[in-house]
Amino acid sequence: MKPVGPIPSGYETIEGELAISGRKAGALVEEAGGTPLFVYSRALLSRRVADLRAALPERIGINYAVKANPMPDLVAHMEPLVDGFDIASSGELAVLQGVGIDPARISFAGPGKRDDELEAAIAAGVTLNCESAGEAARSLAIGERLGKPPRIAIRVNPSFELKGSGMKMGGGAKPFGVDAEKVPALARHVIAQGAEWRGLHIFTGSQALSAEAIAETQANVLNLAAGLADAIGHPLPRLNMGGGFGIPYFPGDEPLDLAAVGRALGERVANLPASLADTGLCLELGRYLAGEAGVYLCRVVDRKESHGQVYLVTDGGLHHQLAASGNFGTVVRRNYPSAIATRYAEPAAEEVNIVGCLCTPLDRLADQAMMPRADVGDLVAVFCAGAYGASASPSGFLGHGPARELLV
Amino acid sequence: MKPVGPIPSGYETIEGELAISGRKAGALVEEAGGTPLFVYSRALLSRRVADLRAALPERIGINYAVKANPMPDLVAHMEPLVDGFDIASSGELAVLQGVGIDPARISFAGPGKRDDELEAAIAAGVTLNCESAGEAARSLAIGERLGKPPRIAIRVNPSFELKGSGMKMGGGAKPFGVDAEKVPALARHVIAQGAEWRGLHIFTGSQALSAEAIAETQANVLNLAAGLADAIGHPLPRLNMGGGFGIPYFPGDEPLDLAAVGRALGERVANLPASLADTGLCLELGRYLAGEAGVYLCRVVDRKESHGQVYLVTDGGLHHQLAASGNFGTVVRRNYPSAIATRYAEPAAEEVNIVGCLCTPLDRLADQAMMPRADVGDLVAVFCAGAYGASASPSGFLGHGPARELLV
Repeated sequence: MKPVGPIPSGYETIEGELAISGRKAGALVEEAGGTPLFVYSRALLSRRVADLRAALPERIGINYAVKANPMPDLVAHMEPLVDGFDIASSGELAVLQGVGIDPARISFAGPGKRDDELEAAIAAGVTLNCESAGEAARSLAIGERLGKPPRIAIRVNPSFELKGSGMKMGGGAKPFGVDAEKVPALARHVIAQGAEWRGLHIFTGSQALSAEAIAETQANVLNLAAGLADAIGHPLPRLNMGGGFGIPYFPGDEPLDLAAVGRALGERVANLPASLADTGLCLELGRYLAGEAGVYLCRVVDRKESHGQVYLVTDGGLHHQLAASGNFGTVVRRNYPSAIATRYAEPAAEEVNIVGCLCTPLDRLADQAMMPRADVGDLVAVFCAGAYGASASPSGFLGHGPARELLV
Repeated sequence: MKPVGPIPSGYETIEGELAISGRKAGALVEEAGGTPLFVYSRALLSRRVADLRAALPERIGINYAVKANPMPDLVAHMEPLVDGFDIASSGELAVLQGVGIDPARISFAGPGKRDDELEAAIAAGVTLNCESAGEAARSLAIGERLGKPPRIAIRVNPSFELKGSGMKMGGGAKPFGVDAEKVPALARHVIAQGAEWRGLHIFTGSQALSAEAIAETQANVLNLAAGLADAIGHPLPRLNMGGGFGIPYFPGDEPLDLAAVGRALGERVANLPASLADTGLCLELGRYLAGEAGVYLCRVVDRKESHGQVYLVTDGGLHHQLAASGNFGTVVRRNYPSAIATRYAEPAAEEVNIVGCLCTPLDRLADQAMMPRADVGDLVAVFCAGAYGASASPSGFLGHGPARELLV
């Protein structure tokens, strides 16, 4: 028997069935036209932002990292809730423009921005988080050609990392950003060349569950930014302090102590170095905002036994849930939080392997998990599916096509 | 310094540049309209089938496993070359129907076939490789409703596996197929219920490079099939012996000794048990047919240094080449065969990290590889990209969209 991860709070049972935003899973599937289906909860998205506002100093802005979930309806829901949007491609820019987001609220990071992407961003008035001297030069040249000074911030590759983070984005040689010691000269150069100076972006890692590690990193980020501002000789209009707030996926994971993060950051903000006195500070969060607000629903297509083990074969799988299958940035596969949605109130009765419909042994949703007895037609729910699910999975693999998505 | 995998044979240099099917990489990119681009070589696809025909007994049919690469032009190229096609979804069936493949040549395996998929396959006359008693019952019911007896083969979960294979599909409890000891009763049942009996499908693993292991497994498969045919009491019209032929991806990998596989299989076929005397035998190959015939081309967008390491940042990445990035079924990341396509004849001159454009540290194409000096505008080639590349990667991730594909 292997445990499954902790089911996030905010989900309830109606007539024995999993309910999302007060509606039963089966009814949502019917409304969407079938399975597999991602359901995202407006209430849980809003609640998470409200929790952040309550815990963090008022001065700290909240940006939504669109890469976590670029579904247009979800982005539109976030629009009045957050302060800014971070994008990673001109494709994401097009999504935000389609939703009607003010480009002045958008910043664009990514190590491989093509010229056409830089042009689209500069023309729209999006802030570029420049990743290298070469990219800054290309941006300035494109701005010159367009007759529009680019809005440039510099992404810093810091010498420290976010401890315990699932993905380290700083510390040592990295493809991201400009090594800290080279930042002042580059910043002075882009300012001298007429760019609209927007400040710094310092992203150190993601998916950390330790408030202490996040607080320590935020202190380091503020110190580094203050030192760089002094060395540049121009104040920073803005500082994107990165993200890194994790969510519990696996057995034993504890939720991030948001109050502790907020307290530590409050102390720092109350004692900011003079060079950051007028700097707009923000956090960039994707997974933390959207991850726990989403559920992936798929239907049991077959129930079979092989050598004494029960398999529930679903119409979903790794083509929509690559990370849950254990094939995206993880070494040892562990079970995401999951359940039989149509028997949500029933006690666990048997050990089952829940697999996807793909013809590969990689396609696993829950290994040797204790579940209520389920049969063909039952719905399986995989939680923590709101971020890096639909858009971060190989939806074309084996020709089953993308999942449906619904925001309720 | 880390080595890169062996570049497959069949590629040449024209005017210092990588050439595919006799055409320079840069010219192919121009024809396709830009990068990132998958190029598949008709000549290499045809050569591989010809090599197989020469090495294998005449009696052994060759099926193409469409999941490896479902690009319609490529499927159309395979149509006159191979004997049959194996599919894993109704999406793949639609591709084959679009290309005009005779459904009588198609068989459909996959543990989670939905009713609508079974219906499409039965209506078209496709052979179903049934994965469970439940699926067989659903197929019979749908056939009854359509007034068309389903063509049913049974997929067997054998008690042995393909040794040294990258992915094991047999041995112990598995979601695939019917445990061998339950096959005879199920086969007699579907025959008694009026299904058109098509035989057995025994798939034991994939991506094996040892001729000895493949020969041993093929012997086991033939023995198992003969024993099952006797127990069923009906001859097997067909036996799909599975695939498992691997290709070299990594430093130190040696190509499969096809002649040795052919010799061993020849001996077996010359001494077949009586119960397989009239059985049509075939192999199911995907990666082995298409993998080495494809190259992924992307363009260097930035060249930067970080803490003394050189990074070539490309417009490609794991959204098209998930397996090459080390994030699909691999535990330890190793470098795929790769090169600077536009400097293909130049000697290695520096150690570089070739990364994709995605804003994640997972997005690596070649780590610490020795390459000719390259700059912005140069083309990077990743080889072994003909199978499980374009269709098996999260092309929507970060909004960069799918790659172009070209068959030449």
